[in-house]
Amino acid sequence: MKKLDDLIDVFAKLPGIGRKSAARIAFDVLDRSKADIDRMLEIIKDSHANIKHCEICGNLSENDICEICANEKRDKEVICVVEGVRDVIAFEKSETYNGLYHVLGGKIDPLNGVTIEDLNLRKLINRINGDVKEVILALNPDLEGETTSLYLTKFLKEKNVKISKIASGIPMGGNIEYTDMATLGRSLEGRVNVDDLD
Amino acid sequence: MKKLDDLIDVFAKLPGIGRKSAARIAFDVLDRSKADIDRMLEIIKDSHANIKHCEICGNLSENDICEICANEKRDKEVICVVEGVRDVIAFEKSETYNGLYHVLGGKIDPLNGVTIEDLNLRKLINRINGDVKEVILALNPDLEGETTSLYLTKFLKEKNVKISKIASGIPMGGNIEYTDMATLGRSLEGRVNVDDLD
Ligand SMILES: [Zn+2]
Ligand SMILES: [Zn+2]
Repeated sequence: MKKLDDLIDVFAKLPGIGRKSAARIAFDVLDRSKADIDRMLEIIKDSHANIKHCEICGNLSENDICEICANEKRDKEVICVVEGVRDVIAFEKSETYNGLYHVLGGKIDPLNGVTIEDLNLRKLINRINGDVKEVILALNPDLEGETTSLYLTKFLKEKNVKISKIASGIPMGGNIEYTDMATLGRSLEGRVNVDDLD
Repeated sequence: MKKLDDLIDVFAKLPGIGRKSAARIAFDVLDRSKADIDRMLEIIKDSHANIKHCEICGNLSENDICEICANEKRDKEVICVVEGVRDVIAFEKSETYNGLYHVLGGKIDPLNGVTIEDLNLRKLINRINGDVKEVILALNPDLEGETTSLYLTKFLKEKNVKISKIASGIPMGGNIEYTDMATLGRSLEGRVNVDDLD
C-alpha cells in the first residue's frame, strides 16, 4: 500500500529509527485520534518555523539571541566551545557552568566531508575580544573531536586568550550528551591549559 | 525552552522512543529544510486521513475493503486470525498463505485492561458462515496470546468450522541448546510423524 509505505518512510528517515521501528510508529500514529495528530503536526510546524540558531553562539533559540547569551548573570569572560546544541543542554543540566557557549555545529570529519569551513568558526573568532578571558574546548574526546580541538587551538593562539580543554573523566570514545552530571562537572573543574601541553 | 520541550515530547510519545532519542530526532528535524518538513507533515496528515481499517477483516486499507478481502484469487474458505496488522504483513511477506485474515487489534491482557470486548471479535463470529471451512489461530505464543486462543476456541466451537493453531517450536536456523524450556516442550508436543511427510 503506497500511502502506508510513504508513512513508514517518513519515520524511517528519522535518526536512529530502523524500518521495523518505523512501521511500529506508523501503526501507532494511524490509530490515534485526528485531534491528536493535528496537535502533533502543529507542534512540529510551529517549532520548525520559530526555533532558530542564536546569532551570537549558534545555540537554539526562539529569539535572535538565545536565553544564555541574553542572560546578564552569565559570566561573559568564558566561552565553552561545543559541537552541538545537545552538548549545551547537557552542560546546562549539570549546573556546573555559568559562562557562555559557542556551538560549532559539528566537528572536522574529512571522511564525511566536514572541513573547518563548515563549522561556525568565524563568529567564534570575532567574539574573542577584550572581554573574553578564556575559551574552553569541550568537544567529544574522539578522533574528530581531538582534531578539531587542535585546529581551534591553532586559530585561537593568535588571540590574547587562555585556551583550555575539558579534562578526561569522560572516557575516550564516550559522548558528552550521554555523560552523567557528576562526570561533566569533573571534566570542567579539571580542565587543563592547552598552552602548557606539547 | 518551551517550544523545544514540546517538540521533544511529540517524538517521546512515539512507541519505542525514549527521551534521549526524542531529543536527537527533534534536533535533526529542526535542521531540515522547510520543504522537507512540509512534505513530512503532508504525508502524515494524508495517510492518517485516508488509511482506515477494512470493514471486513480490520486490516489497514485505503478503501472500505482491503486489497486482500477484495482479491478474488484469495481462498475464502480459510481465515487466519492475527493480533495486528503487522502480523498480516509478516505472513504476506512469507508468501506461504493465500487465505483471508482477521485482525483482532490486540490480545486479552487483563493486567493492561484489555478484555475480550476490546477485540474485533463480533465481526469474526459473523464472518463464519457456510463458506468458511477453517479458522487458523495465529496469535503470538506468549501468555496473553495463549489465553486469547483459548477464548477464541471456546467462541468458535459453536460454529461448524475447523479450528487450528499455528505450530510453535524451534525457529528455522535456531539452536536447540539455546532454546528455552517452554519452546522445547512445545516442539516435542507438536512433533510430526516423519512417515507422513513427503
Ligand atoms: Zn546564544
Ligand atoms: Zn480486509
